[in-house]
Amino acid sequence: MRGAILYGPYDVRVEQRPDPTIIEPTDAIIRLSATCVCGSDLWPYRGLEPVTGPTPMGHEYVGIVEEVGRAVTKIKSGQFVVGSFWASDNTCPICQAGYQSRCVHAVPIGSIGTQAQFARIPLADGTLVATPDLPPDDLIPSLLAASDVLGTGWFASDAAAVGPGKTVGVVGDGAVGLLGVLAAKQLGAERIIAMSRHEARQRLARAFGATDIVTERGDAGVARIKDLTDGLGAHSVIEAVGTQESMLQAIRSTRPGGHVGFVGVSHGVELPGEELFFAEVHLFGGPAPVRRFLPKLIDLIYSQQINPGKVFDLELPLEQAAEGYRAMDERRAIKALLRL
Amino acid sequence: MRGAILYGPYDVRVEQRPDPTIIEPTDAIIRLSATCVCGSDLWPYRGLEPVTGPTPMGHEYVGIVEEVGRAVTKIKSGQFVVGSFWASDNTCPICQAGYQSRCVHAVPIGSIGTQAQFARIPLADGTLVATPDLPPDDLIPSLLAASDVLGTGWFASDAAAVGPGKTVGVVGDGAVGLLGVLAAKQLGAERIIAMSRHEARQRLARAFGATDIVTERGDAGVARIKDLTDGLGAHSVIEAVGTQESMLQAIRSTRPGGHVGFVGVSHGVELPGEELFFAEVHLFGGPAPVRRFLPKLIDLIYSQQINPGKVFDLELPLEQAAEGYRAMDERRAIKALLRL
Repeated sequence: MRGAILYGPYDVRVEQRPDPTIIEPTDAIIRLSATCVCGSDLWPYRGLEPVTGPTPMGHEYVGIVEEVGRAVTKIKSGQFVVGSFWASDNTCPICQAGYQSRCVHAVPIGSIGTQAQFARIPLADGTLVATPDLPPDDLIPSLLAASDVLGTGWFASDAAAVGPGKTVGVVGDGAVGLLGVLAAKQLGAERIIAMSRHEARQRLARAFGATDIVTERGDAGVARIKDLTDGLGAHSVIEAVGTQESMLQAIRSTRPGGHVGFVGVSHGVELPGEELFFAEVHLFGGPAPVRRFLPKLIDLIYSQQINPGKVFDLELPLEQAAEGYRAMDERRAIKALLRL
Repeated sequence: MRGAILYGPYDVRVEQRPDPTIIEPTDAIIRLSATCVCGSDLWPYRGLEPVTGPTPMGHEYVGIVEEVGRAVTKIKSGQFVVGSFWASDNTCPICQAGYQSRCVHAVPIGSIGTQAQFARIPLADGTLVATPDLPPDDLIPSLLAASDVLGTGWFASDAAAVGPGKTVGVVGDGAVGLLGVLAAKQLGAERIIAMSRHEARQRLARAFGATDIVTERGDAGVARIKDLTDGLGAHSVIEAVGTQESMLQAIRSTRPGGHVGFVGVSHGVELPGEELFFAEVHLFGGPAPVRRFLPKLIDLIYSQQINPGKVFDLELPLEQAAEGYRAMDERRAIKALLRL
């Protein structure tokens, strides 16, 4: 099969890779309908995470089940499925509590590489959620978004305790931040302040439900959020970047007793304990347990209540994956969908 | 009046101080019935927090109202009152949300110094809670505990989302940690693992509801908690120390999706972002909004359902405050009550 491989900084190639096969009896093999490039793929792409050798890329996926292992009982060949970027058994106590990304048997799909024609999905019964039928083509981008960026934005909103009457700040205008806006709107937020200095992203934020745009960053951004909230700060702040500046901006933009939901993969962050103590904000985040939210997200997409697929502003054939990386790296594209 | 003053490391003296007077119309003056030495008083006592000049000490208090300012309408002269270590108006949006320690008009009682015969309490109507009547002498230690250490332990349990069926770990065997055990028991925890290597404190932890004692610290302590919880970690962990080691021990002892409630005043803590991200634990803490819990705590004490006053294992007249500090510093006493 064909698949994207990262060789080193700024060097992604689509090449021949071995077809995946069932290894564990709980595996399924899916034929990808679409996949995409993630903001988190840019960390190794930019050389900010080490790459020790040629690495298959990708962890977002939707597709049709080709084959299942003998222990798979719920997922069937021919079904259209959406899965998360962590395989999970969905039965252990951690999964049952709703934290499937930290399942005791969790497998990172990033280690498999779904920017490819086929993929082996471990723990298929726990990981995959089948759609009601074969979806029409126009729903595929949204279903693909559910696999990671929508699920992650939704988790960030949930982690930030977004709800009716709340004012929500969103730090980060990538696909996750934008879909955090969408999630906050769905979860009933009264006011949603998106922080962005990029016009196309501001427009999309407004389309997803943002009521205010703040273009300032760092302490100036914090001051603007305070201005907009009677000096108190937002009730809920979504952090979708993962840097020291963005984390502190999120914490400082939150009122005492409020909630920060952080989903930007942390890079070089050191949180000062004393500031955190006196900030008195709830802090929760990590790899999103997307599996928890998938059935609801699929429902919302099928019933056309949400259209998260709008974050894909670039669509390319898989063979042109390298251009997808380049466009996202240069912020020419919010998110690149790779067609199969 | 007489009051305790810290002159520098290990130098506390009880001296003549000016009698307090009403400054703001929202003030009350109380005549202390009892006060005490706090674990947090030991930071400046040990020279670990700078002391720039002679500093009145103390922020825990119960007593009888002597006089109220003209804007005080709820609190009356002659009432026996308990207050928190933060004065709060109890009406601002932050107070209304239950975070009175971060009231927009908050005043730290530590800046007033309640290890004294009298004290001026700002924002009396918002800060003070009157008991149903003049309490019998044997309830006074427990009511005094409610002013800080019980309220703080209770907040830690609440912040750690303690509840029925949960396994709770407690890092720190000072008065706050021990009363965190008591709070966890009251809040329905199924299993309470107290971390202590001090026999008298272990006994008190068991009396307050601890089901297990772990004597190991650091990574070895984490490993013991994991052993006791099917390898998963506790659902809820109370952190009541405030050091780098204790914070990491608390975070690492918590299962993914679980909750850390931290109330040890943070000293020199730097939390690694990446570890926090992948730990996927809820982190919440800070100065306890004791005012939120005071009415309930007074009820529990009056109805003799709890006896938090047991943490006072040393009772001295105010004049011997210095011995109270010494005994706590040397860990000869858990907590010293100062009689008036």
